[in-house]
Formats: sequence, C-alpha cells, structure tokens
Amino acid sequence: MCQVTILPGEIVFHARRGAPLRELLLQEGILLDFPCGGRGLCGQCAVEIQPPTESGQGGRKKLPEEALARGLRLACQVQIEGDCTIRIPEEKGIEVAWKDPAAVEGSAPVYGEKLIHRRRLKMEPPSLQDQRADWERLADALQGPPGQTPAVLPPVQAETVEGFARALRAGQWQVEAVFEQEALLCLRPAPAEGEAAAEPVYGFAVDLGTTTVDLSLHNLETGRLLARKALLNRQTAYGADVISRTHNFQEKREEVRAAALETIEECARQLEVEAGVTPEQVVRTAVVGNPIMIHILHGLNPQQLAMAPYIPLVSGLVRRRPQEFGWSFQGCGWVETLPLISAFVGADTVGMILALDLEREPEITLSIDIGTNGEIVLSKAGELLTTSTAAGPAFEGAQISCGMRALEGAVTGFRILPDGGLDLAVVGGGRPKGLCGSGLISGIAELLEAGLLEPSGRLLPPEEVARPELAARLFREEKMLAFRLSDRVFITQRDIRELQLAKGAIRTGIDLLLDAAGVSPESLARIRLAGNFGSGLDIRKTMRLGLIPELPVEKVDVVGNAALRGAALALVSREYRDRAARIHRRCKFLELAARPDFQVRFASSMFF
Amino acid sequence: MCQVTILPGEIVFHARRGAPLRELLLQEGILLDFPCGGRGLCGQCAVEIQPPTESGQGGRKKLPEEALARGLRLACQVQIEGDCTIRIPEEKGIEVAWKDPAAVEGSAPVYGEKLIHRRRLKMEPPSLQDQRADWERLADALQGPPGQTPAVLPPVQAETVEGFARALRAGQWQVEAVFEQEALLCLRPAPAEGEAAAEPVYGFAVDLGTTTVDLSLHNLETGRLLARKALLNRQTAYGADVISRTHNFQEKREEVRAAALETIEECARQLEVEAGVTPEQVVRTAVVGNPIMIHILHGLNPQQLAMAPYIPLVSGLVRRRPQEFGWSFQGCGWVETLPLISAFVGADTVGMILALDLEREPEITLSIDIGTNGEIVLSKAGELLTTSTAAGPAFEGAQISCGMRALEGAVTGFRILPDGGLDLAVVGGGRPKGLCGSGLISGIAELLEAGLLEPSGRLLPPEEVARPELAARLFREEKMLAFRLSDRVFITQRDIRELQLAKGAIRTGIDLLLDAAGVSPESLARIRLAGNFGSGLDIRKTMRLGLIPELPVEKVDVVGNAALRGAALALVSREYRDRAARIHRRCKFLELAARPDFQVRFASSMFF
Ligand code: FES
Ligand code: FES
Repeated sequence: MCQVTILPGEIVFHARRGAPLRELLLQEGILLDFPCGGRGLCGQCAVEIQPPTESGQGGRKKLPEEALARGLRLACQVQIEGDCTIRIPEEKGIEVAWKDPAAVEGSAPVYGEKLIHRRRLKMEPPSLQDQRADWERLADALQGPPGQTPAVLPPVQAETVEGFARALRAGQWQVEAVFEQEALLCLRPAPAEGEAAAEPVYGFAVDLGTTTVDLSLHNLETGRLLARKALLNRQTAYGADVISRTHNFQEKREEVRAAALETIEECARQLEVEAGVTPEQVVRTAVVGNPIMIHILHGLNPQQLAMAPYIPLVSGLVRRRPQEFGWSFQGCGWVETLPLISAFVGADTVGMILALDLEREPEITLSIDIGTNGEIVLSKAGELLTTSTAAGPAFEGAQISCGMRALEGAVTGFRILPDGGLDLAVVGGGRPKGLCGSGLISGIAELLEAGLLEPSGRLLPPEEVARPELAARLFREEKMLAFRLSDRVFITQRDIRELQLAKGAIRTGIDLLLDAAGVSPESLARIRLAGNFGSGLDIRKTMRLGLIPELPVEKVDVVGNAALRGAALALVSREYRDRAARIHRRCKFLELAARPDFQVRFASSMFF
Repeated sequence: MCQVTILPGEIVFHARRGAPLRELLLQEGILLDFPCGGRGLCGQCAVEIQPPTESGQGGRKKLPEEALARGLRLACQVQIEGDCTIRIPEEKGIEVAWKDPAAVEGSAPVYGEKLIHRRRLKMEPPSLQDQRADWERLADALQGPPGQTPAVLPPVQAETVEGFARALRAGQWQVEAVFEQEALLCLRPAPAEGEAAAEPVYGFAVDLGTTTVDLSLHNLETGRLLARKALLNRQTAYGADVISRTHNFQEKREEVRAAALETIEECARQLEVEAGVTPEQVVRTAVVGNPIMIHILHGLNPQQLAMAPYIPLVSGLVRRRPQEFGWSFQGCGWVETLPLISAFVGADTVGMILALDLEREPEITLSIDIGTNGEIVLSKAGELLTTSTAAGPAFEGAQISCGMRALEGAVTGFRILPDGGLDLAVVGGGRPKGLCGSGLISGIAELLEAGLLEPSGRLLPPEEVARPELAARLFREEKMLAFRLSDRVFITQRDIRELQLAKGAIRTGIDLLLDAAGVSPESLARIRLAGNFGSGLDIRKTMRLGLIPELPVEKVDVVGNAALRGAALALVSREYRDRAARIHRRCKFLELAARPDFQVRFASSMFF
C-alpha cells in the first residue's frame, strides 16, 4: 500500500499501487471538479504531485513541459505509483469541499457552508442564590443578541437532559456546544482556553437499498470519509423485491422494518469500530433509498405506493431522533431521510441528482442508477425528467447462481482466449469465488460474442458448439445448462434469463423516457451509470448487451454509488441539504405503468 | 338519583338526593363565583331553580319574597331535592367557565379563548395527474393566507401519518382538523355540510401526587368535567415520601417511573370507560405534581433536587407525545407538564396559583396545599412568595393504622357525646371503614378537647381517664395505646405522632414564610386550604390543632384539590395555559432548609 497525503488539509490515506487517483479522491470525500468528466480533455483537473508520476501527463492535450516539470498532472488520469504528496491548487476555483477547518481559513469551499458548527458557552454556576434549572440556565446562555435566530434546544428526553447536566458539571459550566444550523445537538466539556478544539463530530450517510445497505462515515466538519461498508439488507429474507417486501409488511410490519433497521445498526457499528469512533461522537445521519424502503424505514405502510394512483404517505425531508429507529450508533442529534420524487422515484435518485450535480448540468445527460430498481434521470439545463423501473437484484449479484457482491474473489469480467481458456478479472486477484453484477454483464456479453448464446438468450447446448474446448465448459446443473468459469463459478441459463429481465426493464425505461422527452440517443452528451454493480464495468460490453443505447464509449461514465455520495453531501453541506429539501418539487416524473406501449417495448428489449 | 340540567349549555348530570349544589357545580367544571365563600352571606350566587327547592332560601340574609317566588335560590345553600333545571343568570357577571359552544355565542366566557379549535379542510383528491403525497397535500391545504401563522403538522410517526391517510380517505378528502393553537392534532372525516359537528374532543388533567394520583376528564371545548377519579400512586411501593422514591430511582429507574405511569394509565382508562370516551377522542393532557414527581415522570433523575444547591434539571413547561410515556389512553396530540417554581415547589403549586387566581388576588392571602408535601403560597397584589415542607402522607390517610382516602366509609370527623358515645360523620353514611385526613385532624382535636390527649401528644392510658365510658374506648393494640371509634376503626398513639410531625412541618413553613414576608397572622385577609384530605374538614378543629394560625373561622376556606383544578384550567384555556408557562418566573421561593431557625421552630410546632 502507498501512503497518499493531500494538501492543503493534510488528509492522509492509503491506496493500492495502480489505483486511479480520481476514484480515491471521491472516496475520501475530496470533491475536485472534473469538468470534462475525467476524460483528459479539459485540463482543468491539474494537481501537483511529488514525486511526479508517469501517469497523468495528458494525451492529446498534453500539459506544457514547464508544468510537467513542476509536477503538475491531470488528476483524472493519474494512477498511484508510490507514496506521494498531492497539492490541490487553491487558485482557479478547484477546491477541496471540506478540508480540515484549520486549512480552509480565508478560502470559501466550493460546497459552501457546513451544517455543523460549534460554539463555546460559559454560564454562571448555580448557587443557593441562583437556582435556575440546568435546562433553563442553558437556554438563557443560548439567547443570542436580539434579532438573531434563537438556538433551538433538543426535545426534553431523559438521556439528553441528563447528558447535558453531566457535561455542564464536567466542564464546570464551560462547554462546547455543537449545532446543526440553530439546533443544539450536544454539549461537551470545553477544552481549556488556548487548547486544541474538542474531538471531532461524525455522521453517517446511508443508502438503504432493496438488496444492499451501503454506509459511509464522515467527519462532519471536513466532510472527510473515514470508512465505508456495505452489507446485504437482512430484509432480503422477506423477498427480493419491493413488491414482496410490501406484501410481507402487511402481516409482519415490525419484523420487516426491524430487518432494515438492524442491518443499518450493524453496519454503522462495524464502521465505528473500524474508524475508532464512538456513538457519542455521531450527531447526524442522512438516509437515501427508494420510496418503499423509506416508507418501511419510518414504519409506514408502503401499500398505497403500489396501487393506482400511486400516492406516497410522506414525500418531504423527514427529520427524527435516532432512538425512534432503535439505533444506538448515534448518541444525539437528528436522522434525516431525503425527499421522494414520486411513489417510484425516491431519495436515492435525489442523492444521485445531488452527487452528479444534475440540476446544474448544461448538456443533455442521461443518468441511470442501476440497483434492484433502475432509476433514470434525463437532465438538461435544469430540467429533470425521471422514471423508474423494476430490474430485480441481478445487478447486485443476488438471485444469481454464483452471484455475490463486488468483494474479494468476485469475478468482474472475463475474456475467452483463443485456446478456449479464460482470462478472469477477480477482485483482489485471488481465487474466483463468484460473480458480481459487472462480471455477469461482461460475462454474458462475452458468451454472446463467442457465439455461445443466441440473441434470444438461449444458451447453446454442448452438442451445438463447434469448438470442443468451449463445449467442454458447458454442463448441466440440475437439468439446467450452465457455462463454467472455474471449478466453483458458473453462469446458468436461469442467470441469463434474470439478466435479460433486468436489462429489458431498464432499457425500456430509458427508451420511453427519451421518447417522452423527444430526445434521440445520438443527441445525448453523456450517459452516467451509477450503482452497486462493482467497479470495472465494461462499457462496451454493457452497450453490446443493450442495457444502454450505443454511444461512443468516451461519452459513458461509470460513477459508482452516486446515491450514497449525494447522501454524504446532504449530510455535511448546508447548501446540498437545502437543495435536497427542495429538489423533489423541481423534478418531473414519467409514469411508465400508465404508458400503453410499456409491455410491447419491454418484450422486445429483453433480446440481445 | 336525580337528573339536574344546567342552563345555558344544557349540561345534564345525575346527583344523589341531598347533594350540595355547590360541590356538584365544581365537579362539573361549572365555575360559578361564590364571593363570600359559600356562607350564604353575600347573596351573589343566586340561580333560578325549577321546581324551586326548600333549601337555599337564605338564612340571615333571606332572598326577597318576590325572588323566591321566581325560583331564585342561593346556589351555595341548595341541596338537590329531585329532578330539576337550574338557570345560571348571564347578567351580573356570573358565568359558566366553558359552556357548550352553542350556548356561549355572543357571551364572553370568563376564562377566555380555548386552546382547542377545529377547522374544516377540503382537498383535491389524488390522481395520476396530481400525485402529491398525503402529508404534503395536507400541508398545502393548511397553508393559510400569507401573514397568518402557518399550521404546524405533528412529528412524522407511523401511527399519525397512517391515521391521517385513513381519515382523508374516509372523509373523501374533506376532514375536520383539530388544532391546539396552530398545532394540528388530529383529523376526522368531516360530517356532511349542514350536519352536526363531529364528536367532541377530550383531555385529562392529572395531579400526580406522591401518595394519590387524581385525574379529571374534560370536554376540551366546553371545559366540562365528565368524570373524576383518584387512585393510590403505585409508586408508594417504592417509599412513602419523595426522598425514598429518589433513593429507589437510583437502582430501579424504570420500575419506579413505570409505577407512576401505570397508575395514570389505569386511572385514565377507568375514566374513559365510565364516561364512554375512547382514546382516539383524547388529544391533550396537562399534568401537575411536585418537582420530584415531575422529574420521575419524565424519566429524569431527581437526585440533584435533593442536594444543595437544589437545582432542577428542567423547570419549564414541557411538551411531549403520549407515546413517550407509554400511554395508550391518549390517541394523539400532546402531554404537557406545568412548570416548577423551584426544586421544592412544583407544578402542583402552579396549579393552585391558577385555580385560586392568586396572581390577581388583591388582599394578603395564605394558600396551603396539604399533601405529602405542604406547599404554601403567600400572595399579595401579584407578589407570590412560596415555600414547601415535607409533611408525610398522614393527611392523605396513608401510614395511619386505619387510614384511608376520603371514599365511602371514611370517617371525616366525630364528636364525643355526653354519654361517651360517638357521633361519627361517615362518607356515604354507612358503616365506618377507616379514617381519612380530615377525620384524623378533627378526631385528634376532639381527643384533645375531651382531655384524652396531652398538649405534648401523649394519649392518656385508661387508668388516668376519669370518665369510665371513655376509658373503655382506650385499649392496647400490640402494646401501643389506641382509642376506639368503632369495632374496626381506631386511632393509635403512633397515628398521633405521625400527625404531629406532619402538622409541625406545615405550621413551621407557614410561620417562617409569614416571618420572612413580615406579615403577622392577624393581617391575613384569608387562608385557603387545598388538598386531598377529604371534604368536610372542620376549620375550627384544624386551628385548634395548630395546623394553621388562629383566625376568625369565616376567613378560612377549604377548596379541595386546587392543583388539579389548575391543571384543568391549563388543559382547556389558552389564557391559563399561557399564564402557567410564565408564572414560575414571577414566584419567589423561600428556602426553609437554609434558615437556621427551622429545627427549633419545627420542634416547638409539633405540640398542640
Ligand atoms: S477532468 Fe478534464 S482533464 Fe481531467
Ligand atoms: S356564595 Fe355568597 S351567598 Fe352563596
């Protein structure tokens, strides 16, 4: 592993040799601007790297020799080659979103004011002459000058009130108060004058997916990512898709809800242990998810989301106490769920819109969040048209014979060699253990190109295959035809059918949305593919399968879990949180079920 | 039982033949003014009764013949003689506090604007063209004209949100919304245009006493009392006084809290059954109690209330959801606890101040709430000086050999007849079962006057008693001397000692408070005795015992549970609720423990 230090801010992290710098920066919550989408064309992402790397010198648009000599490189093209220090220039508007507070002095971060801030409070100690209650003494100390928005105390609850009383006494009536805008979240004994600030405060971004629950833990003042982890949503025990969850909710309301709540709790606790953070330091959580998952999270019956005229019970930004979810990973403050756009397009899409800045996208862009549901956003100069379609969990590696998430051992793709051998790409490089979503996509495309699969999706039986070395890889597993990748990993006919349904649903959504907007695929400036299908998705093969329209490869980006990134932005930044609260009123929603041509289109979209 | 109808308002209730009208009016929440304290002297309480009664014609100050012929009677002197209709004249400022809304039209109720009001809301039904969420549709419908205070929706909780969605659909998007000021509490399907208003809404006033929990159930729009009930606080299992409760709270926090919560729940449920009210119709609860009881109710550790410098954790008005207390007797809306004045003077005293209108009392008045703690308020032209003192539960009939609350069978007093027989006053008139607080007071005073008790509190043994018929009533119960009232009821030497401690504590408080204010007992215009010691307290005997300073009898009123009445006022009336929220900042508190002369005074106050 190589040690990477980012200046200003002195953020230190470790990375694998060869890792693309752009992804690392995103992972670390350092939001550098990539105006051309990271294609090495605009030259705007230049940073200084010491020692200078081989990579990132630029292709067609090479950096000037003099700049190269100073260590300037295109961040979007750099791969980590060893220990290094990277300085992000503060001129020319490229800035780190939330740097160490010590480092941002005098510079306005791109992403504006943070939500969390602190203030030192000093009170008269109580005495027989001044017997005001602790709570009222605190309220009096929080009274600002007239005209200023008064601070809001949290609701009176035993834990909060007693915790405050302890902090006031431990700090001998001098405390550091942590606020979210004007809401007081927690009190900590103040550090002695002149000493360093008290310990930082943290928060979680949560993407509550139907299949996968994905969390990231951030420093709320710098925005910095400390740790990230995904777990299988325990709710999958109650069905693979939102319809079976809704069905099960009718009978087992509490159980179905608890399964999701517990998955989040467990994931958050693991991240806290990993990052050395305690629940007392966690003061905020922002959650995204599809409408049904958000309803269930709040204990709300999602039934009417699934019945015409498809009306959510609540669609705005909702703010509640962590205790209302039974969560003990967060000691105080608030949990917020981002708004829903419609009964089918949820807070996860709001997250993607935030993360990809689609509100401010000047060109016609198609953004697709591929998960158990596919959410699709067509954006153009501030107009946002959205739809969603039920893909099933195949892209997350679930309900697939050898499916798995994109963890160590997952096959992310393969190539059939001339001798019939396979060149497998495996996460971590070790023994293949299963197939993740991107492996499934590129694998099926490879079978198609090798002539082992018909455009209808029928896998050829060994007797119809000309090359014996390939025929030998075909076998029957419980009467079903399958193609072997390794001793443990294979793709079955049923897996192929699952993928066909999933890609058919998404492609139908894309086509109908473009139709409705009167936009032809060729006029798209860019396609962005977001989701949990694993890194290394092969764009050419994705197009070969017909999941997305055919476009020049360089117009397509794979952006990872954009929904989670959006949640992280709304977790930390006041501007993004305010945009999230308003955004759903700006989005138009295209109802697919209401379109008479849906079924016909879907049937034809299933073929390769 | 006789049926009594009150006009205006057509309030109908049932009463026992012989029941005093004044008590019935108070019980029903009809606050008629009794300027002379109900002694038949001022003639101000005249009402018209049909058919005219024998009682209430007036004594020394007889009503004029012409008035008597019209059916006018002094309400304070009337006993119910049969079915009757009582008209309260609207002229001369005598008014019903909260009458039926139909009846108050054009007349300003004494107690001002009510807290609860209703509004009819009409919305567009959802459709595929208008897919706004239920919650947002409702929020839009609640948007008043610009400049008007916007309505506040309740917190998003599954029960509330789903309940609203059901009501919106059941009413076909026409609902009646119930508000507490601008806070939306609940929705009910709207009655068809022109039809009667939807069913009324109700609320509970709660006096959470150390020993006794006293509840009243009210119509929130008319203020009318529907039912009232008191239960023994189950917390008595954790000690008789607030100090042992505090002690037990340290180890058994949840248990101690739950005991009080469950007593309230049980009492409220019984009242609902009695009055035919369902939890869905209950939208507000107002609670008073001493500081330690209010802390425990909120789950707050009361420890620091009992240690110098005696600082409450919270002293303001606190507003929480019924679910936070685990209560199912209230379906929606809020529970409020009234503010505390100090660590020793609580919301119960705030209730008494409201009920007796002490803020607006022009003359020097001493008001004493006698319970397990005695709270004392000296009021004079808006100045309020308060203190409190630990009396123990004797006045509530607890920890007394034959003690009981003032229920059927309780001895409320007795007189020793010349032949040594006893004339017992028993609630309900049947067999005596025990002694309530007022029975204990008047009984011990009677023993003292009969020479059976020395001023030191020593009960004479039979051999020292001259009259053999009285000596025969003295016996030893487990080596302790006792005086027999009936085969089952007696007073022991220990009971007398308990009473001595209790009255000593209260009298010391009174004396020190008067001292501190520089007020002599003779300059008091009035003394008001509030508490749960049972009706029929003999004022002369109370003075004989030295519980209160000697004053002309007519200057002393017995006012019943004023704390509960104050809670009921803050439950229903906007003005009283607002006064409650501010009142504690106006009160001065006299710290008795800090006074060096407390112990000396206390020791001498114990004697008779
Ligand atoms: S982002 Fe345009 S060159 Fe790197
Ligand atoms: S109250 Fe004065 S006469 Fe009845």
